[in-house]
Amino acid sequence: MTKEQEFLAYLKEISLINEAVGLAEWDSQTGMPEEAAGYRAEVSSYLAGMAFEKGTNEKMKAFLDYFEENPAELSEFGQEVYKKVKEEYDLNNNIPVDRFQAYSRLTSEAHSIWVDARQQKDYGVFKKTLEEIIAFNKEFIPLWRKDEKTPYDVLLNLYEPGMTTEILDEVFGQVKDGIMEIRAELAEKGTEPDTSFLHRHVSQAQQEEFVRRVVTDLGYDFKRGRLDETVHPFMLDLNRNDARITTNWIEDDFIVATLGTIHEAGHGMYEQNIDAKYDYTPLSGGVSMGIHESQSLFNEIIVGSSRSFWKKQYPVLQEITGDIFADVNFETFYNGLKKTQSSLIRIQADTLTYPLHIIIRYEIEKMIFNEGVALDNLAEIWNDKYEEYLGIRPENDLVGILQDVHWSGGSFGYFPSYALGYMYAAQLHHVMNQEFDVEAVLASDDYSPILHWLTKHIHQYGSSRKPSQLIMDATGENLNPSYLIDYMRELYFNVYDVK
Amino acid sequence: MTKEQEFLAYLKEISLINEAVGLAEWDSQTGMPEEAAGYRAEVSSYLAGMAFEKGTNEKMKAFLDYFEENPAELSEFGQEVYKKVKEEYDLNNNIPVDRFQAYSRLTSEAHSIWVDARQQKDYGVFKKTLEEIIAFNKEFIPLWRKDEKTPYDVLLNLYEPGMTTEILDEVFGQVKDGIMEIRAELAEKGTEPDTSFLHRHVSQAQQEEFVRRVVTDLGYDFKRGRLDETVHPFMLDLNRNDARITTNWIEDDFIVATLGTIHEAGHGMYEQNIDAKYDYTPLSGGVSMGIHESQSLFNEIIVGSSRSFWKKQYPVLQEITGDIFADVNFETFYNGLKKTQSSLIRIQADTLTYPLHIIIRYEIEKMIFNEGVALDNLAEIWNDKYEEYLGIRPENDLVGILQDVHWSGGSFGYFPSYALGYMYAAQLHHVMNQEFDVEAVLASDDYSPILHWLTKHIHQYGSSRKPSQLIMDATGENLNPSYLIDYMRELYFNVYDVK
Repeated sequence: MTKEQEFLAYLKEISLINEAVGLAEWDSQTGMPEEAAGYRAEVSSYLAGMAFEKGTNEKMKAFLDYFEENPAELSEFGQEVYKKVKEEYDLNNNIPVDRFQAYSRLTSEAHSIWVDARQQKDYGVFKKTLEEIIAFNKEFIPLWRKDEKTPYDVLLNLYEPGMTTEILDEVFGQVKDGIMEIRAELAEKGTEPDTSFLHRHVSQAQQEEFVRRVVTDLGYDFKRGRLDETVHPFMLDLNRNDARITTNWIEDDFIVATLGTIHEAGHGMYEQNIDAKYDYTPLSGGVSMGIHESQSLFNEIIVGSSRSFWKKQYPVLQEITGDIFADVNFETFYNGLKKTQSSLIRIQADTLTYPLHIIIRYEIEKMIFNEGVALDNLAEIWNDKYEEYLGIRPENDLVGILQDVHWSGGSFGYFPSYALGYMYAAQLHHVMNQEFDVEAVLASDDYSPILHWLTKHIHQYGSSRKPSQLIMDATGENLNPSYLIDYMRELYFNVYDVK
Repeated sequence: MTKEQEFLAYLKEISLINEAVGLAEWDSQTGMPEEAAGYRAEVSSYLAGMAFEKGTNEKMKAFLDYFEENPAELSEFGQEVYKKVKEEYDLNNNIPVDRFQAYSRLTSEAHSIWVDARQQKDYGVFKKTLEEIIAFNKEFIPLWRKDEKTPYDVLLNLYEPGMTTEILDEVFGQVKDGIMEIRAELAEKGTEPDTSFLHRHVSQAQQEEFVRRVVTDLGYDFKRGRLDETVHPFMLDLNRNDARITTNWIEDDFIVATLGTIHEAGHGMYEQNIDAKYDYTPLSGGVSMGIHESQSLFNEIIVGSSRSFWKKQYPVLQEITGDIFADVNFETFYNGLKKTQSSLIRIQADTLTYPLHIIIRYEIEKMIFNEGVALDNLAEIWNDKYEEYLGIRPENDLVGILQDVHWSGGSFGYFPSYALGYMYAAQLHHVMNQEFDVEAVLASDDYSPILHWLTKHIHQYGSSRKPSQLIMDATGENLNPSYLIDYMRELYFNVYDVK
């Protein structure tokens, strides 16, 4: 065995342990017996701790030191892998194993506390746990990285390498202005679509039949994935042949699960199409949360807002749902889907207002980590911002600060990824559309050119290229929010019949 | 930390790894994407190998050596745990880790090959894999134990400590004679019940509603378990608060899933009621397969054959199924349930003929390990024995030698446990019935005295007492097959109206 082979075999061990941790997590959210939570937390924290220990121990250090001194012993592939491992090592090197295990146990238990707080609609039930999770993050931030400008920049970088509050303040400013401008024009000159039909009762079975067909058409492979139900939908990849998605069926609001599943399928398709050569290495997953969201949002926003796509799929929905939508013609249906309206729940927000939900969370997270805001006030701050940005105020914490799972899992700095995903998706769509007519493909029986384009430019690389490099290589320029604003203006002016 | 605490902490690590292996196994049978099998085999074999290594390595040896020399440092509880660990250590001590890992990988992959062979109804597809599994067992037998009379005795002891071919030849002889005698009398003097109604279509949803209520009534706790669908039903305990069961819904034969689920719930109730003090030790599971089967079969056979039980539950079934059974009176229903008839499929066999299915498997396994039978002939031998013992011959391997999952997992020596379970269950019922009127309890709204009795005499002890000791303590005598034969004679003479 060469030293590189030894190194790869060692990485495979870590990857196998992580896969078991992933399965334990998936199971705990999809149907683990409720009284098993305490036992499960023990398993998850033990195994996560073991993977963490192997990733930071003397043996790993010896490999990294060896290849630093003997880079010529690495193949080109080995070099790629080494670089990524070294980055992760440098990131986690200073976190003590026992602190990481304690944190892992806490976030595992926090999920049920969050669920409990939601049942009671009371942020107060979750606050102490949130405080503990934040304290761990504040403890870890200076251990993770010392060279970022602000503590929150460190967190942003965990999910989107190279991202800063400086860039986001600028880009989010443009997006916010653009959205505000569009909303003002729609309010002044637009015709609001009818959406009453959206709340007709569609059974879970009917929704499921429809959406399974749609995501299969789009290229999500059920032989290498599965669909389950959870409160908060997610995609979890155990490996490229096991990229699982979940959704939340709401029988009086079928579009939630429909677009939600299309969204998660986009995440799954990314994982399913990463080059198999990266198996069992840290390059085997999507490169960043922002790029990941660009793939899910390409599905949800670009495909899910396409007139041609719905022209083809609406008859399928009608066939599956019997006479539920018999009296709703295509124009009414399509325009209804794209109504924009302030809402309290992020995952139910329309395409246009969604980025505002993200900007609220971004600002609150900055306050927590850069400004030391008092947690007692957080639910109020949340509610105030919704009133200010969207003109509506949550009546309780379930539809306010308790709506998202992210903080219970310690994922601070993650939310901005969603808005980055919007911008990346619009930018990728712009270029794709120069190569072939995307609407024409979505009008056809074969959507595969889209998946092939995304696989060629994004999916196949796994984590071997940085987000900024992927975007530059695929589109010929850096992140540019104007494509998103242009896309939204055209879409909504069309639906609202603004001349 | 005392040495005993260190020892227990080490055992907990092994237990946590095994729990992850258990979850991976459960998932691979209940809905893992089909193309993920190869990746899953890697995870399972790596983690199982790790647990195995920890159970047999120098660190474990050092603990065992230490306590052998310093037994006074163990509490009474520590002593119990030590004894069990030492036994397992001595068993596995001589198996090389890499051979164990290879075996583990093989049995993980064998499952899908078995499924494939079933689809093709062709034993030939599975034969090579079976041969490899058997070869591993033949390699391991002399490493496991040297002091048994025959190779197959070693395998029997893996599942039922203290059991021998000598005892089984004797006991199975009595059971076989008893059953033959009863069958002869039924054929000569009995009135065969009508069973045509058993094949009326009952939807999965109706079956599921009924059987979930029944097993909840019996004491299976869904907050500490769950019910899924698999080809071959099983119970898998991750821990006492997560004892999962599966069943196989057949809409034109509702009684299969009904009794099957009641059976698996018996296994689950055993695990759910083991004393929590044994958590994370090798004493935390049921003691032997025979005792485990005694609990599932107590549910399936004793409860499931009880006139009082069905008198109460049949109206519930009727209510759930609408008018499906409106024209079937109770006597017809109950007698129909207990019809005895030769069948090809073990898990669909009736109470009376079931032990014959076991005796066939017992004889074939003895031939494989003690007589070196040629595997090419195995499907023929299987079919010949069915013709000889039950008077019917399988038309293909799916309803013949490919019907059971056990061999694909390497579980040789396991089958006799089912028949031991029959005998133990009847013996326990005999004594329980001297303490309180079991039929009266099953006629009431509260079945809990039965669960309490079984928990008191069996469940709570986990693996801390040997099967023979449990039976002796609970019933005042050794295994005695006459209770089973008496029970069956009474049951079937009643149903068949034999004076």
